[in-house]
Amino acid sequence: MKKIVIIGGCAAGPKVAAKCRRMNKENEIHLYTNEKIVSYSACGLPYYIEGIVPKIENLIIRTPEEFRDAGINVHLDHTCTKIIPDEKAVIINNEKVRYDELVLCTGARAKDVKIEGGHLKNVYKLRTIQDGIAIKEKMKTAKTAVIIGGGYIGIEILEALIANNIKVTMLEAGEQILSNFDNDIAKIIQNYIHKKDGDKVEIREKTKVDKIVGKDEFVGIITDSGEVIEADFCIVATGVMPNTEIASEAGIETGRSGAIRVDNRMQTNIEHIWAAGDCCEKHCLITKIPMYISLGSIANKEGRVCAINVSGGDEKFEGVLCSFVTRYFDFTISTTGLTEQHALEYSKFINIEPISATVKKHDRAGYMPNTNEITLKLVADKRTGEVLGAQAVGKGDADKRINIATSALKSKMTVDELINLDLTYAPSFGTPIDPLLEAAYKLKKIIDTKRHS
Amino acid sequence: MKKIVIIGGCAAGPKVAAKCRRMNKENEIHLYTNEKIVSYSACGLPYYIEGIVPKIENLIIRTPEEFRDAGINVHLDHTCTKIIPDEKAVIINNEKVRYDELVLCTGARAKDVKIEGGHLKNVYKLRTIQDGIAIKEKMKTAKTAVIIGGGYIGIEILEALIANNIKVTMLEAGEQILSNFDNDIAKIIQNYIHKKDGDKVEIREKTKVDKIVGKDEFVGIITDSGEVIEADFCIVATGVMPNTEIASEAGIETGRSGAIRVDNRMQTNIEHIWAAGDCCEKHCLITKIPMYISLGSIANKEGRVCAINVSGGDEKFEGVLCSFVTRYFDFTISTTGLTEQHALEYSKFINIEPISATVKKHDRAGYMPNTNEITLKLVADKRTGEVLGAQAVGKGDADKRINIATSALKSKMTVDELINLDLTYAPSFGTPIDPLLEAAYKLKKIIDTKRHS
Repeated sequence: MKKIVIIGGCAAGPKVAAKCRRMNKENEIHLYTNEKIVSYSACGLPYYIEGIVPKIENLIIRTPEEFRDAGINVHLDHTCTKIIPDEKAVIINNEKVRYDELVLCTGARAKDVKIEGGHLKNVYKLRTIQDGIAIKEKMKTAKTAVIIGGGYIGIEILEALIANNIKVTMLEAGEQILSNFDNDIAKIIQNYIHKKDGDKVEIREKTKVDKIVGKDEFVGIITDSGEVIEADFCIVATGVMPNTEIASEAGIETGRSGAIRVDNRMQTNIEHIWAAGDCCEKHCLITKIPMYISLGSIANKEGRVCAINVSGGDEKFEGVLCSFVTRYFDFTISTTGLTEQHALEYSKFINIEPISATVKKHDRAGYMPNTNEITLKLVADKRTGEVLGAQAVGKGDADKRINIATSALKSKMTVDELINLDLTYAPSFGTPIDPLLEAAYKLKKIIDTKRHS
Repeated sequence: MKKIVIIGGCAAGPKVAAKCRRMNKENEIHLYTNEKIVSYSACGLPYYIEGIVPKIENLIIRTPEEFRDAGINVHLDHTCTKIIPDEKAVIINNEKVRYDELVLCTGARAKDVKIEGGHLKNVYKLRTIQDGIAIKEKMKTAKTAVIIGGGYIGIEILEALIANNIKVTMLEAGEQILSNFDNDIAKIIQNYIHKKDGDKVEIREKTKVDKIVGKDEFVGIITDSGEVIEADFCIVATGVMPNTEIASEAGIETGRSGAIRVDNRMQTNIEHIWAAGDCCEKHCLITKIPMYISLGSIANKEGRVCAINVSGGDEKFEGVLCSFVTRYFDFTISTTGLTEQHALEYSKFINIEPISATVKKHDRAGYMPNTNEITLKLVADKRTGEVLGAQAVGKGDADKRINIATSALKSKMTVDELINLDLTYAPSFGTPIDPLLEAAYKLKKIIDTKRHS
């Protein structure tokens, strides 16, 4: 019988707890969270704000009672402040709690806002259930908002606000929104947002926020060029950072990314201390270089692998491909692997020569009523033809093609092998030669031409 | 300058012609078809009958004029009756036509009906544009129909008829409808049809048709147990057979399947004679055994490869995975690779020990409004863990998962490798752990248990 202590209650923590329970009926399992609820879908918060998900309770995956019924001790409102590896103990709400195995699922938080005025009332971030409730409440009486940050959380909040008739100014410090896409693809997304909702949304790239202004309450922001933008409220969505302070203080190694370093069994450098989810560094299967990404799908998989190993099994989590999907209303935004831009940056460190091809195609037979276009960009290594990444966006079924590419990436498939892949076809579902295969063929021709020239 | 003669005008033929043109501007290209139109989507015919595709013209991909404008000589209503390889000539409409390269894209036809009464008026098959027009016309004045055959064409016609308020009796001679699915999965499809349209459809398995009766016009059918089923019209959808007569007579080799044998460059056993599409035998990438399947997606890919080789290039078509999708209204029916039943049959010839796991899961986050269930069955080889096939059906997004499995099959991915595949996730698109990965995990556990027992 072992005592397993898990710190963190959103995605990975509850997954570890539930899986540890299924693996072994004897072990004593304790799940501690500093929140007032446990096991919820943070990814669903934008849709709660939008109103598609009617009640916040809908986002709760398992209640504390369900965990307790399964024999898992859930401790809400309990904050872990210190890990003492030598004593195999943690300090939680000022009390010492001993463990046999400790699992850190401390997650990530919105990046510390260093903008002056970030503390003002009506300045929000979106990470927890409480954040979601607060934004939804504020939205009811507001007409205008500023979103700081054009990443995917920014885009998801944008949909929620636009659907509720809020006029939005989105400010992006970088060259483009959605930095996990190439600039040409990000532009297509942005054009769609403008085409659909140009009267309600203004997106400004290369615009840094100098300060947030207001007396007690938010009044507006001042850009680095001195311009003032007023609004009823503000959401800061400038990305997340892993919660690793208590880990670092205890001598648990973190990587260059700042996240906790784990091996492929989710073990940290200290014996009997494990980690999973958004607090962990990831291993990129393409570059083999450690990196950081925060996604619920990865947290769940890491949690499962971690639980098996904590329970005495032997399972490996090989790494990630940074596969990602979101939407702006009916417009799908999806990617896997490296963008061309990222591949070019990595080509300084690893032996690749990135090259790309883009196609714009129907997602289904052109004569079917539910047909829409997608734009698909495929990136490969010119030398080997190996697929390096794919991006697909549009009102059509883009995500399907990206997941095929994900599987191809995992197997190190070449463009040549991809071209004749026997994908399903029927008029309601695709085209005789799928857009992904069209892109592969186009890319192969480019590669062949460059090889011969 | 070469003279390229292509026989067949539906999918593969036009693809070969168009691609040959793009490959080489000098060659003389002739496309002969015994139909009155060329280059159309036969796969779209059920949706024309249903009324989703408003006009038959919508199904035409390229008109004869467009081909002629591209410098391709299109000959409608021209039937090829003989190939004379020694003279490098064919007999078309009683005239001798010489070729430098001959490409056979003669397609497939509805299996010759050997049922007594198959010639009667109001007994239809669905293969050509003319068939589609005739069925749609008949449907306008009819109230009841019999469909003989529960394959995918039968199911697609069923949707078309039910949508037009025709009461249908479907008769299937075999144990189950849709023989490219396992019995347990076919049952789920059939249950859905009954649940949705039980008042309009009766499906009878293990029911052979003894004869079709009527004086001049169709009146009804008599089953082998002597039962009479009357209806206003009848559609025979008992499968297709390749059109290979002229090829066989000329000494072109056909395989055990009856279809034309080609190498991976789409060349027949006779020099300068090529073949592509539904008239050709296929190479199964999993079993490595020749087989026959008739699908537009494969015809297009073979056509492209064939055209490149005919034009002097060097391209290979490695083979098929029998990936397939169709629908019954909002219910998706999709598969790739081997069913468990087929894998068991093949295990007499090849070294596999098939084993399967089935999961029933949401296709998206449970709290999203557009969430539906899918049932997914994954088949793998117990000894190696290699994926052998997958079937997914349901009102949810089943096809996405099947195409991921297709890519995995092509790469000979094992269940272990599949489990942690980094698929995209967002509440509108999937679940944190995808149903396909859930099935892989379930299957891995079964394999592990059996290995240890």
